[in-house]
Amino acid sequence: MSHNTFGHLFRFTTWGESHGPAIGCVVDGCPPGIKLSEADIQPFLDARRPGTSRFVTQRQEPDQIKILSGVFEGQTTGTPISLLIENKDQRSKDYSEIKERYRPGHADLTYDAKYGIRDYRGGGRSSARETANRVAAGAIARKILGADINIRGCVTQIGTHIVDGENWDWNEVPKNPFWCPDAKAAKDWETYLDSVRKDGNSIGAIVEVQAQGVPAGWGAPIYGKLDSDIASGLMSINAAKGAEIGSGFAAASYTGVENADEIRLGNDGQPQFLSNHSGGILGGISNGDTIVARMAIKPTSSILTAVRSITKSGDEIDVRTKGRHDPCVGIRAVPVAEAMLACVLADHKLRHRGQTGR
Amino acid sequence: MSHNTFGHLFRFTTWGESHGPAIGCVVDGCPPGIKLSEADIQPFLDARRPGTSRFVTQRQEPDQIKILSGVFEGQTTGTPISLLIENKDQRSKDYSEIKERYRPGHADLTYDAKYGIRDYRGGGRSSARETANRVAAGAIARKILGADINIRGCVTQIGTHIVDGENWDWNEVPKNPFWCPDAKAAKDWETYLDSVRKDGNSIGAIVEVQAQGVPAGWGAPIYGKLDSDIASGLMSINAAKGAEIGSGFAAASYTGVENADEIRLGNDGQPQFLSNHSGGILGGISNGDTIVARMAIKPTSSILTAVRSITKSGDEIDVRTKGRHDPCVGIRAVPVAEAMLACVLADHKLRHRGQTGR
Amino acid sequence: MSHNTFGHLFRFTTWGESHGPAIGCVVDGCPPGIKLSEADIQPFLDARRPGTSRFVTQRQEPDQIKILSGVFEGQTTGTPISLLIENKDQRSKDYSEIKERYRPGHADLTYDAKYGIRDYRGGGRSSARETANRVAAGAIARKILGADINIRGCVTQIGTHIVDGENWDWNEVPKNPFWCPDAKAAKDWETYLDSVRKDGNSIGAIVEVQAQGVPAGWGAPIYGKLDSDIASGLMSINAAKGAEIGSGFAAASYTGVENADEIRLGNDGQPQFLSNHSGGILGGISNGDTIVARMAIKPTSSILTAVRSITKSGDEIDVRTKGRHDPCVGIRAVPVAEAMLACVLADHKLRHRGQTGR
Amino acid sequence: MSHNTFGHLFRFTTWGESHGPAIGCVVDGCPPGIKLSEADIQPFLDARRPGTSRFVTQRQEPDQIKILSGVFEGQTTGTPISLLIENKDQRSKDYSEIKERYRPGHADLTYDAKYGIRDYRGGGRSSARETANRVAAGAIARKILGADINIRGCVTQIGTHIVDGENWDWNEVPKNPFWCPDAKAAKDWETYLDSVRKDGNSIGAIVEVQAQGVPAGWGAPIYGKLDSDIASGLMSINAAKGAEIGSGFAAASYTGVENADEIRLGNDGQPQFLSNHSGGILGGISNGDTIVARMAIKPTSSILTAVRSITKSGDEIDVRTKGRHDPCVGIRAVPVAEAMLACVLADHKLRHRGQTGR
Repeated sequence: MSHNTFGHLFRFTTWGESHGPAIGCVVDGCPPGIKLSEADIQPFLDARRPGTSRFVTQRQEPDQIKILSGVFEGQTTGTPISLLIENKDQRSKDYSEIKERYRPGHADLTYDAKYGIRDYRGGGRSSARETANRVAAGAIARKILGADINIRGCVTQIGTHIVDGENWDWNEVPKNPFWCPDAKAAKDWETYLDSVRKDGNSIGAIVEVQAQGVPAGWGAPIYGKLDSDIASGLMSINAAKGAEIGSGFAAASYTGVENADEIRLGNDGQPQFLSNHSGGILGGISNGDTIVARMAIKPTSSILTAVRSITKSGDEIDVRTKGRHDPCVGIRAVPVAEAMLACVLADHKLRHRGQTGR
Repeated sequence: MSHNTFGHLFRFTTWGESHGPAIGCVVDGCPPGIKLSEADIQPFLDARRPGTSRFVTQRQEPDQIKILSGVFEGQTTGTPISLLIENKDQRSKDYSEIKERYRPGHADLTYDAKYGIRDYRGGGRSSARETANRVAAGAIARKILGADINIRGCVTQIGTHIVDGENWDWNEVPKNPFWCPDAKAAKDWETYLDSVRKDGNSIGAIVEVQAQGVPAGWGAPIYGKLDSDIASGLMSINAAKGAEIGSGFAAASYTGVENADEIRLGNDGQPQFLSNHSGGILGGISNGDTIVARMAIKPTSSILTAVRSITKSGDEIDVRTKGRHDPCVGIRAVPVAEAMLACVLADHKLRHRGQTGR
Repeated sequence: MSHNTFGHLFRFTTWGESHGPAIGCVVDGCPPGIKLSEADIQPFLDARRPGTSRFVTQRQEPDQIKILSGVFEGQTTGTPISLLIENKDQRSKDYSEIKERYRPGHADLTYDAKYGIRDYRGGGRSSARETANRVAAGAIARKILGADINIRGCVTQIGTHIVDGENWDWNEVPKNPFWCPDAKAAKDWETYLDSVRKDGNSIGAIVEVQAQGVPAGWGAPIYGKLDSDIASGLMSINAAKGAEIGSGFAAASYTGVENADEIRLGNDGQPQFLSNHSGGILGGISNGDTIVARMAIKPTSSILTAVRSITKSGDEIDVRTKGRHDPCVGIRAVPVAEAMLACVLADHKLRHRGQTGR
Repeated sequence: MSHNTFGHLFRFTTWGESHGPAIGCVVDGCPPGIKLSEADIQPFLDARRPGTSRFVTQRQEPDQIKILSGVFEGQTTGTPISLLIENKDQRSKDYSEIKERYRPGHADLTYDAKYGIRDYRGGGRSSARETANRVAAGAIARKILGADINIRGCVTQIGTHIVDGENWDWNEVPKNPFWCPDAKAAKDWETYLDSVRKDGNSIGAIVEVQAQGVPAGWGAPIYGKLDSDIASGLMSINAAKGAEIGSGFAAASYTGVENADEIRLGNDGQPQFLSNHSGGILGGISNGDTIVARMAIKPTSSILTAVRSITKSGDEIDVRTKGRHDPCVGIRAVPVAEAMLACVLADHKLRHRGQTGR
C-alpha cells in the first residue's frame, strides 16, 4: 500500500489532522446497490469514541459521520463515498508547549526528520484520531462482506494480565469498558488500570480479531497474501508493534506434529479442521476456518512521568506529557483492528471475484 | 501490494513454480548507474541454497542466477532487470502421490479452493523455492542502499531453545549452520535438531533482521508506514505466522515508562536513543536508530509422522510426507527476511527522495 | 490509473456528484514545505467557473475552495491535502425528467448498465463538475513544478473554425471568453457560437496545452511514458475523444525527413531542436523542448434539438435537453487540460527524482 | 500505469532490450482454468514478426515464444505466466557507430538525459522489439475475453494515402502486407512505399482497432475510464503520437446534432445505436456498441537521408541511419495495437466483475 491509501479494488484514502477542522476518508471501489446510511456507520464510531470511560482519553468528540457522496436514495452507486467527521474539541493550547519538544515514543522527531515541518497540535497526522476514518471505512466493508461474515475483536492482554481461555465469552466483551471476553479478568484490569493511571504511567496490550464465515479461496499469492495484507493493515494502526496470524509467535515453539491442523470431512461435506493453528489461512489463502489475527500495542507514549529527551534545536530536556491520554491505547484499538480486518477481507472478496468469477 | 508484485517505486515481480523449467523475477525502478553483475547476487543465493547441511532440505540446486536485461557494460541502466534461475533437481515423481492429497499446513486445499486447479508438483507456486527470487532482488536492493547500510539476520529461537542475549556475537552467525549468534546455543540446536529430524518431526523458529545506518526520515504515513511495509514483506515469506518491530509483542507487557526510548544528544550532534524498544521506527518513519524486526516461522508442514487429512474427492486419509524437507524452515528463511527488509528500505529510500528531494 | 485516483507518487483522488452537498479531492504525496493557501488555488477555479459569459453554462457556482488538511502555518506538511468545494446552485428539479431517460452522448445508459443505479441529478458523478477538483489539484502541481515551468492552454479550433498560426499571441488568450490566441478568430467565434446556441445546437473543439521549461529526462519507459500519462490524463476529461502529442495525427502524413526534429548545439551548450514535431517527448521521456499536447472535445451532448433515444424501461422517445449547458464544452476544458498536464508533470518530477536522485 | 507494468487486475510487466539475450513478459492476474499453450500465442507473434515482406525490417527473428510458468497440464493456474522470447539476430556491430550519436526522433538523447547511461545497441529498451511482449500478453487477454469478443485492426492511412470507406472489407486485411482493408488502396500503397524506401525516407500511418461484442458496463469513472486506459495503452506503443476513440479529432468539427448517436430498441430488446461517433464508450464505460480506436504513428525515425544532430559530447554531426528499418512502422504496429486493446478490455472485464459481481 502506498502513502495514505489502503487496498487494491476496495480502497480508501484518509486525510486530516488531530486539530484541523475535520478528518475524512474517501472509499473507492465499493460495489453498487448496497444499502448505506450514516446510521450503518455511526455505531462503530461510537464504539471507538473517546471519553466513554475513565480508562480512555477524556477528549470529547461526537464523531458524527457525514456521507458527502457515493450514496443515492439510500444505496451505494459504485462511485467514491466521501466521509467526513468534524473535529470539535481540539483545545490547541494544551499542545502548544510540545512545539519544540520531541516526545519519546511519538513521531515528533521523525516527522521533522522527514518533512522538515510538522503540525504539532495533538500529533497532527500521526494522531490516533485518524483511525476514526478506518472505522468508518470498515463499516462499509462489513456491508460488502454481508451478514454471513462475522468480524469481532477483543483485548486479550493488558500488561502481564492475560485473559483465561477457559473464561472466554464473547458476550462479555460489550459488558466491560475493556473489550475483555473474560469477566474475571475485566475486574482485575479495572483495578490494575486505575493504578497505572494514578502512577502517571501507561501500559501495553494485545488485541485479537476474528472473522467467521470467510469462504475458502480468498487471498492471493505471493505478495498479496491474505496474511500479508492483514499484517500490513494491523501494523498501520498507531502504536502497533507486532501482528500475527493463528498461533503466531507461539508457532516458533511448536513441532510440526503439534502445529498440524488435521482435517476430517464435516457433516456438511466440507473440510473440517480439528484445530486452527493456521488462523484460517494457508499459503496466503483462506481455508474456510475462522480467521484469527492478533496485534501488539505498545503503552501510550504520552505519560505524566518525566522522561529524558531533546528539543528540535538540540537542547536536552525532561518531557512530562500532560493532556487527555488513554492509559492503554490498546482498548480503543479494538474497533480499529476489526475495521482493518473487514477492509482487507472486502478487498480480497472483490479481487477474488475479479480474477476467478466466483 | 498486489498479486505477485512487491514495492512501489523499487518493485519486483516474481514468477515460477517449484518444478517448472525455471523461476525468475523482474526488478523494476532500480536507479541507473549502479555496478551490478551476477557475482553481486550469487553469494546471497548460495547462502539460501538447499543441500548445504543436514539441517536443510537435500534437494540439490545450484541456483545459478542469470541477468537477462537491465544491465549494460556492468551497470544498471534504470530499465527492468530480469533475473532467471533454472530448476535443475525437480524429481517430480517424489510428489506424484500428493496430487489428490491435501497435506495439512500446506496450500494444497486453498489453491484448489481458489483456482480449481493447482500445480501439485513440489508445492507449485506456493513452494519456498520462490524465495530465491526475493534473495536476488534483495541483493540489488542492498546495492541501492549502499555500503553505509548494513542488513543482517539470524535465528534467535528454535522451538523453546532461545539464544542468550549475553552470548550474542554477530561473528558467530556464519560459523554454524543455523545462522545462530550464540555459539553455545548453536551446539545445543545441533543436538536438538538431530532429534527432531530422527523423530520424523519438525520445529518452528524466530528470525531476527536488523538494518544499521538507515537515516531518520524514511517511511510514510499512514498506510505506507515503514513498519507496515516490513511486516507485509516478512509475512509474505512462506511459513511466516507473525512479524514484529522492536519490542514487538513484548511491548504489550511494558509500561510507558519502561518502553520509552529516552533521547540525549550524541557526540555527533545527532539524537541518540538510550534504548531501542521502537525498533528504529516512530510513526511509520525511521528515527535513525537500528531497525529491528522479527518474524515467527511455523514448523515445516511436511513431516514423516502421519497426520489426518482428506483427499480432493473427500476421502479421509493419513498423510505422511516423504521427501527432502527442511526440519526447520526458519533456518533458510534468514537470507529471505534480510532480502525483504532490504527491498522495503530501498523502495522507501526512493520514495522519500521522490517526495522530499532529500 | 485506477478508479478515481490519478498519479503514482503525486496522486489525487476525487469524489462527489453534480448535485450532492459538495465535491472534493484528496491530494497525496505533495512535497513538504511548499507555501500554499486557498488564494493559490482559487484563481484557477475562477477561470474554470461556470456562468462567466454567455458562451458557457449559466449555473452559478462560487466554487470556493477550502483546504481541510495537509497545510500548517501556510506550508504543506507532506501529508494529504483535502480540498472541498460546496455545491450551491443545484436546482435538482431541472433534472427530474431525465430520471428514466437515456440522453444520447451521456453516460446515463452506461452507468445504469454498469451499476444498475445512478444518481441522475445533473449527471451525478459523470458531470463535468468533477473537473473543478482537478483544477484545484493542478494548482498544487504547479507549485511543485515551480516558477520555471510555465503551463498554459488555449482553444485552437471550434467546429471548422481554426486559429491562424500567423496570428498566434498568448497574450490574447485572457482577453476573450474563448481562450483563443488569435484575436481575429475570437471575433469570428463569437458570431459563430451565438448562431450555434440560437440553433439549440452545440459544437466540438480542440484544446492545446503547453509546458515550457520542463528539463530533459522526465518520464519513464514503457507504460509510464510521459506521453502515455498525458494522453491518459487528457482522455479522462469529460467529452474528450482524442489526445495527441506534438504533430500528433498530422504525423501520419509526414515523411521521416519532414518529421525529423534536427538538433544543433544552443548558445547555452544545451541541445537545441530546430523544430518540435515530437512535442518535447522522445521515447516517453522529455527532451527539454516545450511539451505540446492537444485534445479533441466533442460537442456538448445536452442540446435543445430533439434526438431519438429510449428510456430505462425500453420506450422509444425523443430527447430535448433543456437546462444551463455550455454550447461548447471545449472552452471550459482549457484550465482542466492545463491542470492534468501539471499533475502528470509534477508526478513525473517526483518519480524521476525518486529513481535517479536528480 | 507505472514503469514497466500495464494493467490493474490483469497486468503484465515487460523486460528486455533489443540486443540482450532475450526479451520477456510476466502476465499476472490471469484467471485460472483457461486452456493455454504456446500455440495460442505464436500466430499473433508471427503476424508481428519482422522480415515478412520488403515493407518491414529485414531483421530475421523467429520470435519463438516459451511459457515458463503459470500453465499446468494445458491450463492457466491463476499464478504468473512468464513468457520469454530469445533474441537471435542481433548483429550488434550494425549499431556500434550510434554509441555517441543522438539520432533525431529516437530516445538516445532522452535516455542519456534521464539515466546518464543507455544500452545503445539497437535502441536498447526503447526498441520496438519490446512490443513482441505485448502481442504475447494480448494473446492471453483474448483468451480471457473469449470467442464472443472479436478484436481486429488495420492500417487506414499511410502518408496522405487514405483507405476509401466504400471499399472497406475486413477480409482484405490478411491478403496484403499492409493490413489494409481496401484492396485498391493496398495496390497504391505498394507503389508508394517502394518509392519512399528507395528515397531513403519513411512515412507515418494511422492504425485503427476495433472490439466487437464488448458488453455494456465495462470501464470505470473517472481516471480508470475505458477510453483513458485505451489511450494510455496505445500511446505507450513506440512512435505513437496520438490516440482517439470513435469520431476522435473529427468530433471537434461536429455539431451536437451531428454527433448524437441516436438510440432505438433493437430486435433483441437491447439498445441499438444508429451511429457510433462515441466509439462504443460513454462516460468511460462501454455502451455495448463496437469499440473503435485509432492511433497516429509517426514516420520511422531511422532514415538513410542525412539529418543534422549532435553527439553525446556536443559535436554537431550529420546522421544517416543505416540498418534494417521499417519504412513505415505503422504496419507492424497493428497487432501491437490489437494486443493493447485486448489487454485493457481483459483488465476491465475482471475489474468490472470484481466490483459488481457481474
